[in-house]
Amino acid sequence: MTIRIGVIGTGMIGEEHSRRITKTLTDAEIVAVSDVNLDQAHAMIDRLGLDATVYETGQALIEADNVDAVLVTSWGQTHEEYVLAAIKAGRYVFCEKPLATTAEGCQRIMDAEMAAGRRLVQVGFMRRYDHGYNLLKDTMDAGNLGQALMIHAAHRNPTVPERYVTPMAIHDTLIHELDTFRWLLDDEYASAQVAFSQKTRHAHSEVRDPQLVLLETTRGTRIDVEVFVNCQYGYDIQCTVVGEEGIAHLPEPQSLTLRQAGKRSNEILQDWKKRFDDAFNTELQGFIHDAQAGALKGPSSWDGFAAAVAGDACVKAQESGQVEPVSMPDRPDFYR
Amino acid sequence: MTIRIGVIGTGMIGEEHSRRITKTLTDAEIVAVSDVNLDQAHAMIDRLGLDATVYETGQALIEADNVDAVLVTSWGQTHEEYVLAAIKAGRYVFCEKPLATTAEGCQRIMDAEMAAGRRLVQVGFMRRYDHGYNLLKDTMDAGNLGQALMIHAAHRNPTVPERYVTPMAIHDTLIHELDTFRWLLDDEYASAQVAFSQKTRHAHSEVRDPQLVLLETTRGTRIDVEVFVNCQYGYDIQCTVVGEEGIAHLPEPQSLTLRQAGKRSNEILQDWKKRFDDAFNTELQGFIHDAQAGALKGPSSWDGFAAAVAGDACVKAQESGQVEPVSMPDRPDFYR
Amino acid sequence: MTIRIGVIGTGMIGEEHSRRITKTLTDAEIVAVSDVNLDQAHAMIDRLGLDATVYETGQALIEADNVDAVLVTSWGQTHEEYVLAAIKAGRYVFCEKPLATTAEGCQRIMDAEMAAGRRLVQVGFMRRYDHGYNLLKDTMDAGNLGQALMIHAAHRNPTVPERYVTPMAIHDTLIHELDTFRWLLDDEYASAQVAFSQKTRHAHSEVRDPQLVLLETTRGTRIDVEVFVNCQYGYDIQCTVVGEEGIAHLPEPQSLTLRQAGKRSNEILQDWKKRFDDAFNTELQGFIHDAQAGALKGPSSWDGFAAAVAGDACVKAQESGQVEPVSMPDRPDFYR
Amino acid sequence: MTIRIGVIGTGMIGEEHSRRITKTLTDAEIVAVSDVNLDQAHAMIDRLGLDATVYETGQALIEADNVDAVLVTSWGQTHEEYVLAAIKAGRYVFCEKPLATTAEGCQRIMDAEMAAGRRLVQVGFMRRYDHGYNLLKDTMDAGNLGQALMIHAAHRNPTVPERYVTPMAIHDTLIHELDTFRWLLDDEYASAQVAFSQKTRHAHSEVRDPQLVLLETTRGTRIDVEVFVNCQYGYDIQCTVVGEEGIAHLPEPQSLTLRQAGKRSNEILQDWKKRFDDAFNTELQGFIHDAQAGALKGPSSWDGFAAAVAGDACVKAQESGQVEPVSMPDRPDFYR
Ligand SMILES: [Mg+2]
Ligand SMILES: [Mg+2]
Ligand SMILES: [Mg+2]
Ligand SMILES: [Mg+2]
Repeated sequence: MTIRIGVIGTGMIGEEHSRRITKTLTDAEIVAVSDVNLDQAHAMIDRLGLDATVYETGQALIEADNVDAVLVTSWGQTHEEYVLAAIKAGRYVFCEKPLATTAEGCQRIMDAEMAAGRRLVQVGFMRRYDHGYNLLKDTMDAGNLGQALMIHAAHRNPTVPERYVTPMAIHDTLIHELDTFRWLLDDEYASAQVAFSQKTRHAHSEVRDPQLVLLETTRGTRIDVEVFVNCQYGYDIQCTVVGEEGIAHLPEPQSLTLRQAGKRSNEILQDWKKRFDDAFNTELQGFIHDAQAGALKGPSSWDGFAAAVAGDACVKAQESGQVEPVSMPDRPDFYR
Repeated sequence: MTIRIGVIGTGMIGEEHSRRITKTLTDAEIVAVSDVNLDQAHAMIDRLGLDATVYETGQALIEADNVDAVLVTSWGQTHEEYVLAAIKAGRYVFCEKPLATTAEGCQRIMDAEMAAGRRLVQVGFMRRYDHGYNLLKDTMDAGNLGQALMIHAAHRNPTVPERYVTPMAIHDTLIHELDTFRWLLDDEYASAQVAFSQKTRHAHSEVRDPQLVLLETTRGTRIDVEVFVNCQYGYDIQCTVVGEEGIAHLPEPQSLTLRQAGKRSNEILQDWKKRFDDAFNTELQGFIHDAQAGALKGPSSWDGFAAAVAGDACVKAQESGQVEPVSMPDRPDFYR
Repeated sequence: MTIRIGVIGTGMIGEEHSRRITKTLTDAEIVAVSDVNLDQAHAMIDRLGLDATVYETGQALIEADNVDAVLVTSWGQTHEEYVLAAIKAGRYVFCEKPLATTAEGCQRIMDAEMAAGRRLVQVGFMRRYDHGYNLLKDTMDAGNLGQALMIHAAHRNPTVPERYVTPMAIHDTLIHELDTFRWLLDDEYASAQVAFSQKTRHAHSEVRDPQLVLLETTRGTRIDVEVFVNCQYGYDIQCTVVGEEGIAHLPEPQSLTLRQAGKRSNEILQDWKKRFDDAFNTELQGFIHDAQAGALKGPSSWDGFAAAVAGDACVKAQESGQVEPVSMPDRPDFYR
Repeated sequence: MTIRIGVIGTGMIGEEHSRRITKTLTDAEIVAVSDVNLDQAHAMIDRLGLDATVYETGQALIEADNVDAVLVTSWGQTHEEYVLAAIKAGRYVFCEKPLATTAEGCQRIMDAEMAAGRRLVQVGFMRRYDHGYNLLKDTMDAGNLGQALMIHAAHRNPTVPERYVTPMAIHDTLIHELDTFRWLLDDEYASAQVAFSQKTRHAHSEVRDPQLVLLETTRGTRIDVEVFVNCQYGYDIQCTVVGEEGIAHLPEPQSLTLRQAGKRSNEILQDWKKRFDDAFNTELQGFIHDAQAGALKGPSSWDGFAAAVAGDACVKAQESGQVEPVSMPDRPDFYR
C-alpha cells in the first residue's frame, strides 16, 4: 500500500523532501500540497511533475480524504498548529525541527498524541539516520568504548545570514546535537553552560560567534560543543566520544584525496543538505515504511520536547553566563 | 509503470538483487523466478515474501507475458544463452558479469542486439555506480588532473576457495578493473602483461598469487594492478590516478576512527557485497528507471565484450610472460 | 667552548638528559653529578661512561669551579632551592618543571634572577621545541588562521600510579599545556574552570579522572582541555586551534600505516619520553648553545611562574567547581 | 677525539653537509675545503665561519696531515678519482651518490678498498637513515609482514631542469630507490623493465616522463616504481610493502592538518633536502661516530656498486623496452 503524503510548506526543505519521496524513495507519493504562497506550491508541482492537489490551507490538506500522512516543512512558528491538527485528524505526521517553538508547545503535542492513544508524530532529527553516527552508536551500544565519559563536538557553518541572532545558534543549529547526544548516550541532560570566545571578525553585529556549549548528562557524561556559524571554510560536523575503553571519531564525509599544488587535500562540504542527503533519504523512507506498518519508530514528540527543554536551558545559559539546570519531567510510559 | 522483473538464478547474488529490488528500490517488482534448483527458487520467494511465479526454465520465464525485464544471475556459463533469449523475446536484460565466458559469445550477443535494433542489455559492472569512483571520474572529466598518465590499483580479497585457479584472477576478479579503467579513461586497452611475484604462503596450490597486471591504453596511459586474492586482512580496493596536473586517490569506505589498545585504526571491510552495496542499489535502480524510460544507458554489451577481449589478453599474458596485444575491433556506431 | 654541565638528580629524566647530552648533542659534557642516592649517581656515571665527579650535595656541585651550567632534575620539592643556589653562584640552570612547587617560590626565583641582572634560568617546557607545535605556532604567527578563537586539546596517559592524586592532573600533567597555550597564543590566562565527568572505572580511588579544564585568556580565546590519565590506549596529545580564517590540528607522531587483520592502523605511542624525544634534544641543545652565547632565550622563570599561577587557579577550580580568576601581576620588563 | 673532515666540492650539497657538521652534529669539524672554484670554497668558509684551510686540489686536501675523513660532494664524474685517492691515503671517505658513474668504476673502488684491507668508504644513501623507512624496515625485519611479495613506490619531483635527460631518471633519481629496496629486502635484483606512459605536457623535449620501472629480485619480490620528475605538485616519496601477513605504507612527512577554504589539507614538501634533512643528519653523524670507532657500518662500496649495476640494467631497459637481466657477481666476503 503506497503511503499518500500531503506536504505543508514548499520552501527549500519541503521541495527537497518532495523530490526525494518522488524520485528516490519507494512506497509513497505526494498527493496534496499546501503553502502560504499558492504560486510556489503550484510551481513545485510543475517542477516535480506531481499529480497532486493544491490546498489553500494546511488544515484543509490535513483533512483531505486521500492523505495518509502529512509532511510539515513550513515556517517553524506554524509547526505546532499543523501537528496538532494532524493528530486530531489521525494522520501520521513528519515534522521538521522544531516540533514547536517552545517546550510548552511540545507538551501540548505530547498531550494530544497520548490522548489519541498511539504515536502519530515523527520529528525530523535526521542525524539519527546518518551512516557515520550509526557506526558510532553501534560501537557504543556494543560496549566497545565502555561508559561514555566525554563527547567533544563541533558544528560549523561557513556563514549565516543577517537575520541569524545568537539564540538561533541553539534553536536552529545546536538543536541537532541536542537530539543526537541524547540518542547516542540514551541519557538526558542535567545542566548546560555557554562560554563565548572573542568574536570572529566574520560575524555580523547581532550574533556572538563562536561559542562553546557545555552539557552534563544525568549519568555524568561531559559534552563540549563548539558552535561556529561563520567559520568560512565549510560545513563541518565533528563528534568524538571518549569512553573508558577507547575513543571513537565520527567519520568525515567520503571524498577524494588529491595531491595537487603543494597540498594533499580532501574537499570539505559547504552545504548541510549534501552532508545529510543519505540520512534524509533513510529517515523519510523509514517514516514511510513505519506508516505502512502502522507503528512509528523514529524520533518522537518526546524527543522534540527534550531537545526544546535542553535548548531553553542553553539559551538561558547564553544570557546568564552560569551553569543552568535542565529540568526534564519523567518520561511518560507512552514514550518508552 | 512498475517494471516487472524475472530473476534467473537464485544464488547469493540473485537473492541479494531480489532483496534490494523488493525492499530498497522503487518502481520494480519481482514477478517471476527460475533456478536449476527449484527448491532454492521457492525458498527465496518465501524468505522475501514475493508474489512471484516459479518457472522450470529460464527460457519459460523469459517468455512469460508479465515479465518486462530479466535479471540473469545464474552460473556464468549460462549467461550467453539467457541473454540471447531475452533479446529474442524483446526483454530488457540485466546480466551479471561475465556477459559471456568468451569474447565470441559477447560478439554473438552484440550481433543479436544490433539486429534487434535497440539496446536491451546491461552488464553488471557496478563500480561505475560507486560514489568514490564517480568522484574520481568527475574530477577527471572536469579536467582537474589533466591527461591521465598512470593508474596504480589493487584488488585484494582476504581469501579464495580451493576451486579458484589462476585465470580466475582475471575473469572473476580483475574483470571489474578492466571495465572500470576503460570507463574512467574513456579509452581502450592496447596491451597487457602479467608479472607474478613470489607466491604467498596463504595461496593454495592451484593459484599463483599475487600478481601484477600491467595494461597500456591506446592513448598511452600505463596501468598497474596488484591482484592479491589471499591477502588475509580484508577486501580492499585501491585506485590512484596520476595526471599531468595532480593525483587523485579513490576514497576508503567510510568508517569510524578508533583510538584503542595502542592503535589509531579504521576497520577494513571483509566482504565485497558490503563494499559495493550502495553501488548495486544505484546500478539496479538505474536499470529499472532506464527500462521504464525505454532507453538503457548503463554498461552495454560492448562493455561486456571489451572486458572479455582484454581479459583474454591478460590470461594469455599470464601464460606467456610476454606483453600481449589487445585486439579490439572498431566500435560499432550502435554502441557509441 | 664546551659547556660543562653538572646534573642534580639522576632519576629517569636526569639520566635521559645526561645520555642525550653525552651521546646525541654537541658542545656540552657532563662533568659533575649529584643525587640524594650517591650509589645511583655513581651507577649512572658508569652506565654512560662519564668522566664526572660525584658531589655529595647539589649545593657543592653548583659551587664547583668547573661547572658552567646546572641541570636540575631532582624531586620537584627541591627545585627552588637548587635554582636559587645556581643563580647565586652565577651558573646557568636548566630546571625541569616545576620551577618551584608554589607561585611564591617562582616569585623568589624571579626576584633573585632579576637581582642577578641577567637571565640564568630556563624551565623544561619542552613542547615549545616539538616540531609539530612549532608548525602550529608558525602558521599562527604568520596570520594564516587569523585571531585564535578557541583551542581544543587533550592530554591522555595510559595509566598513572597509585600515588597520583587529583591535583597532580594540574601540576604534573596539565602544566605542559598551561605553558604551551601561553606560548602559542602569546597571551595570559584570565580564568579557569574544571568539570569532572563520570569517573572511568580504570582510575584508582584517589584520582578523579577524566576532567575537562576550561581556560579563558585575556584576549578572549576559549580553551578546553581533556585531561585523561587512565585512558588505557596510549600517550596521546591533541591540540586544535580554531581561528577566524581556518583551523589547524597538531600532527600525530609519525608512524607506519598498516593494513592487517581487518584494520588500517597506526601505532599510538605509550611513553611521553618517546613522544617528545626530539623536542628534548632541541630544547637542551638550545640551552647549551644559548649558554655558550651567554644569553638564554628559552622558557624563563616568568614562564615557570605563569604556569604555576594558572595551575593554582585550576586546582582551586577543581575544588570549588566555579570559574576562578587567574591573577597575574604585570610582567616585569626584565622578562619581556 | 673529534674527527677532522676535508670537504671536496662546495656546491649546494657540500655546503649543506658542511653546515650540518658544524652547526648540528657532534664530534667532527671541517678543517679543509677544496673546490674547482676556489672563490666558492672561500665563500663557504666565510659563511659558515670555519677555521679551515683551502686546498687547490682534492688530491692535496686528501693528503693533508690533519684530515681524518673526506667528504666527496663534488661533480659526479670526479667521485671515483677522489674516492680512490682517499683509499690510497687511508682516509675514511663519505661519497655522495653516485660512488662512480659506471659499475666498472665502482668495481675499481671495491678492488682498492679490499686491497687496503678495511672499509674506508661510505656511500651517501641517506634514505637508510630516514625515520619512516626505518619504521618500515623494523616491521619487516620483525616478521610482521611475512615475506615481502611486492613493493609499490613512487619518486616524484615537482620539476627538473632542461639538462635533465631520460637516463638521469635512473642515475640521479631512481638510484635512491635502487639502494633502498635492496636494503629493505636484504635481496638483490634479478631483472629490470621500464614502461613509459604518455608524456606529461610539463616535461621538456629531452626527457620522457613519467615512467614505470619494474624490478624483480632474486627471491621473487616484484617492485613497481613510478618515476615522475615533472609532477608539478611537490616532492613526494611513496613506498608500500605488500607482505604475506599485511601491508605497510611509508609515513608521510609530518605536517599540520588545516581546515581552510573548503579543504582539509596537509602541505606537501617541495624540496628533497627538507624531506631528508633528519636522515642526512643521522647519516653523517653515524659516519663520524663510525670513523671515531674505526669501523664503518653504513652503505658500502658494494652498495654503490649494486645500485650502479641495477641502474645500468634500467637504462638498458629504457632503451630496449624489454625485460633486462641484472647480472650481479657474487658478493665478496669482505662486504658481508
Ligand atoms: Mg532535520
Ligand atoms: Mg557486478
Ligand atoms: Mg619538561
Ligand atoms: Mg644521498
